[in-house]
Amino acid sequence: MKPNKQKKKFSWRERLHEIIYEADTPAGKLFDVILLIVIILSIFFVMIESVKGLPRWVYLYLYYAEWVITILFSIEYILRLISIKKPQKYVFSFYGIIDFLSTIPLYLSFFISGSTALLTVRALRLLRVFRILKINRYIGEGNKLVIALRDSRPKILVFLFAVLVLSLIAGTLMYMIEGSESGFTSIPISIYWCIVTLTTVGFGDIHPITPLGQFIASIIMIMGYGIIAVPTGIVSAEYSRATKKSTNNNTQHCYNCNATEHQNGADFCYNCGYKLHDDNE
Amino acid sequence: MKPNKQKKKFSWRERLHEIIYEADTPAGKLFDVILLIVIILSIFFVMIESVKGLPRWVYLYLYYAEWVITILFSIEYILRLISIKKPQKYVFSFYGIIDFLSTIPLYLSFFISGSTALLTVRALRLLRVFRILKINRYIGEGNKLVIALRDSRPKILVFLFAVLVLSLIAGTLMYMIEGSESGFTSIPISIYWCIVTLTTVGFGDIHPITPLGQFIASIIMIMGYGIIAVPTGIVSAEYSRATKKSTNNNTQHCYNCNATEHQNGADFCYNCGYKLHDDNE
Amino acid sequence: MKPNKQKKKFSWRERLHEIIYEADTPAGKLFDVILLIVIILSIFFVMIESVKGLPRWVYLYLYYAEWVITILFSIEYILRLISIKKPQKYVFSFYGIIDFLSTIPLYLSFFISGSTALLTVRALRLLRVFRILKINRYIGEGNKLVIALRDSRPKILVFLFAVLVLSLIAGTLMYMIEGSESGFTSIPISIYWCIVTLTTVGFGDIHPITPLGQFIASIIMIMGYGIIAVPTGIVSAEYSRATKKSTNNNTQHCYNCNATEHQNGADFCYNCGYKLHDDNE
Amino acid sequence: MKPNKQKKKFSWRERLHEIIYEADTPAGKLFDVILLIVIILSIFFVMIESVKGLPRWVYLYLYYAEWVITILFSIEYILRLISIKKPQKYVFSFYGIIDFLSTIPLYLSFFISGSTALLTVRALRLLRVFRILKINRYIGEGNKLVIALRDSRPKILVFLFAVLVLSLIAGTLMYMIEGSESGFTSIPISIYWCIVTLTTVGFGDIHPITPLGQFIASIIMIMGYGIIAVPTGIVSAEYSRATKKSTNNNTQHCYNCNATEHQNGADFCYNCGYKLHDDNE
Repeated sequence: MKPNKQKKKFSWRERLHEIIYEADTPAGKLFDVILLIVIILSIFFVMIESVKGLPRWVYLYLYYAEWVITILFSIEYILRLISIKKPQKYVFSFYGIIDFLSTIPLYLSFFISGSTALLTVRALRLLRVFRILKINRYIGEGNKLVIALRDSRPKILVFLFAVLVLSLIAGTLMYMIEGSESGFTSIPISIYWCIVTLTTVGFGDIHPITPLGQFIASIIMIMGYGIIAVPTGIVSAEYSRATKKSTNNNTQHCYNCNATEHQNGADFCYNCGYKLHDDNE
Repeated sequence: MKPNKQKKKFSWRERLHEIIYEADTPAGKLFDVILLIVIILSIFFVMIESVKGLPRWVYLYLYYAEWVITILFSIEYILRLISIKKPQKYVFSFYGIIDFLSTIPLYLSFFISGSTALLTVRALRLLRVFRILKINRYIGEGNKLVIALRDSRPKILVFLFAVLVLSLIAGTLMYMIEGSESGFTSIPISIYWCIVTLTTVGFGDIHPITPLGQFIASIIMIMGYGIIAVPTGIVSAEYSRATKKSTNNNTQHCYNCNATEHQNGADFCYNCGYKLHDDNE
Repeated sequence: MKPNKQKKKFSWRERLHEIIYEADTPAGKLFDVILLIVIILSIFFVMIESVKGLPRWVYLYLYYAEWVITILFSIEYILRLISIKKPQKYVFSFYGIIDFLSTIPLYLSFFISGSTALLTVRALRLLRVFRILKINRYIGEGNKLVIALRDSRPKILVFLFAVLVLSLIAGTLMYMIEGSESGFTSIPISIYWCIVTLTTVGFGDIHPITPLGQFIASIIMIMGYGIIAVPTGIVSAEYSRATKKSTNNNTQHCYNCNATEHQNGADFCYNCGYKLHDDNE
Repeated sequence: MKPNKQKKKFSWRERLHEIIYEADTPAGKLFDVILLIVIILSIFFVMIESVKGLPRWVYLYLYYAEWVITILFSIEYILRLISIKKPQKYVFSFYGIIDFLSTIPLYLSFFISGSTALLTVRALRLLRVFRILKINRYIGEGNKLVIALRDSRPKILVFLFAVLVLSLIAGTLMYMIEGSESGFTSIPISIYWCIVTLTTVGFGDIHPITPLGQFIASIIMIMGYGIIAVPTGIVSAEYSRATKKSTNNNTQHCYNCNATEHQNGADFCYNCGYKLHDDNE
């Protein structure tokens, strides 16, 4: 191949890469918005298709729509492969696998006839919506939320573990007290009930009927009441700290010793005592 | 028309405008309170009318009461039209449309006999209660709440979007796992169940019965547990900031020692005793 | 009567007043604790008596126990009347009325035979437990809680009003959409369902069955999700302020101008610039 | 016995003590992790065993697995007894009793045949999981959580007491209003319902059916809505204080301008540039 052809092809691929993988140019933004709409439509079609009792022509139209979207997704997948330098990096990335899995099922249906299995994989297409969340990273608000959640993750994990242990013990206790008549047929079911109760969801499919069971359930509920306060308190404190951190955006650098992270309103360097120049206004 | 008559009419309209549209004068306040009582009465009557099985004379009296209130509302509507300089501005405002729609249905019932459709429009009269909320704007507390909610709106929207995406995926998953027997008859129904569960409402009309379904449901519930912390943390932090903002806005710097964070109304520096110059007015 | 006898009687009444109405002396504390136990016992007996299907002798013993407690309460009531200077002040106070009403029903049962009506009044004896809460006023923690709740009351009222208006509108909407089949038989019932849903209780006795109803219900639930954050945020911020206020217990008084409420660590009066003497250490 | 043998045995016991009771050495960590896995397995087996309708061989294998784990636990118990200086201190400690009770039931089953009673004791083995939580004490996050919870305990107790009193009164009220038809068969059941409602769990097994009952229930629910804010607010404020305490404890005062709130590690005053004297060490 000649170098100038290679070069031309490269620039064309580069432009395509910019459109498909980035969202800085108007064309890239447009592509993302259209992709978003098509994904939402496809999700909507999958949802409608699961509803029983609609007229037959609806399912026929949905079948055609499915094919149109599958072909659009196939083209997108091929374009993504072409426009990237190292295709294998995309193919084995999280979104690459999802993109592949959400495109392939309809093609497979020619060779293997298994509509249920097909549906299972098609649902993964829904995960594509998460890609849209990337946009939020550019919004400051989403950023703060992510920081608050990331910072409070270890605490929340410790907390969730405590909840699980509590569910285990309380679940076993309820299983022994209530027995099979009220629905506490096994320890796993009892633990499921315990989680339903501690999270204050309370379906009511299983509920205690013996006085002792109801007494223990009351204690579990009041404990859940106190427990629900913990993650809220954590996130609240972390979020308030994350907000403060981003408010305290003092960008002053000391001219003498180059120290950063000065207090707001500081006039002298905390490190060397040198007069600071107010460079953020 | 003669100018002095015009003038007299204007002053009469101005006084009416003051009574109807404003709440600063005793007459204006009285008007608002009476209107409030009539609206609450009309809401109460609509509520009672929907209850089945009452003696016949109750419905008859309610019919008369409806007419009395409709006529009162009609007079109010006409007075509002007369007393304002640019009637079209009121007519096409949010409250103007609601006022019109909550007055007209009973008159329409002479020409078109459709009791259900009538009821539909009549319900909009309930929205009139929101006008009373305007009073709260004058209370500082309501103001802070509004600021806290407005400031945290983008964050809560980002958060709600995440909840919706989670509901979509978890709902599809539950639909595939549970199937029709436990009530997960379609993906939309499954998503509805997911929202019911994530918000910890838990009606129990639909609930998982397979072990795997109950396991996934447990995970969804515990996630919902952690998730409920997020909006609370946001509003809590925002509200606390809104409160702080309105209480401590002293920007004085001491000329002698450069100390900040002086108390509101402070005349001397708390740090060195130097006279403060009021630089924030 | 002779003045010295009068005097002696007075001191005896004063001592009794100290024991019954106050809790500073050991005797007063003992009286309060015993009264507390008797009240709890009487509540426990009322609770047990309501349980059906127990052996007959239990109800007999409970009847005797009721009489013993009623006589004890009668003695206490008479002692309260004797030991106070102005008995009418006690008789017509909130607790005086409750004390009277919780003592009288058993005596009345001789003249009027109405067990159900009797039970109704007896339940008021339960309110007596609130008197025990007075003890918490002496605990600093309870104090802070009371301050936090009192300070956030106007905000919570504004908020509750908004919740009620939302329930009214959403309830009417659900009544029109769902109709009688799913349990939304009238607007009041619909509003009841709405409150059950917005507060995330979710009994499930009434629940939407039409797709549109489930969609509206989903929106109501997600709104309730965001709304639950508001009172928590308010109390959280208020409580944190109440804690700070009690931490910022600067008791300095300016020697020159007698100003108080100085900042922590202040060395000079913010009002007159006079040097402050550190009198809280 | 000879002293050198005694010495050798002692050092062997010391090493064993280090492995079993401590988690600082690699061997100690490994022991803890293995013990953790065995405990989780044993919990898992107990859970599976309670499930009815599995093939017979599963129960047989579970029986064997139970024996293997019981023997492992027995060995561990004996090693713990040997390696500690004062065995009675371990035997009568909380974990010592749990360890003993979770080991003995299978041995007892030879002499006394009571499978249900056996199961009851076996469930205590689940409490062993709490020992794993000790690890969290070493993580700073867990520490802060424990501090926040310990600091807010008196407040939460005051609060829970208020919730219980409210449940008592509201429960009695609902019992009198609703009667037996809607499930409010006795006052204890009514109180149980009240706790289910106030904690927003809402099973729906018992729910009001009379209009007055539904009205009172609505008020209880809205109160519960406001009440749920209290513990969250408390934990949130306490946690935020615990976090602040551990991050900013700089007590330096500038000798020149008396400024406080210096950054940690600051050597010069941010306000006047004067050299700071480190007075907090």
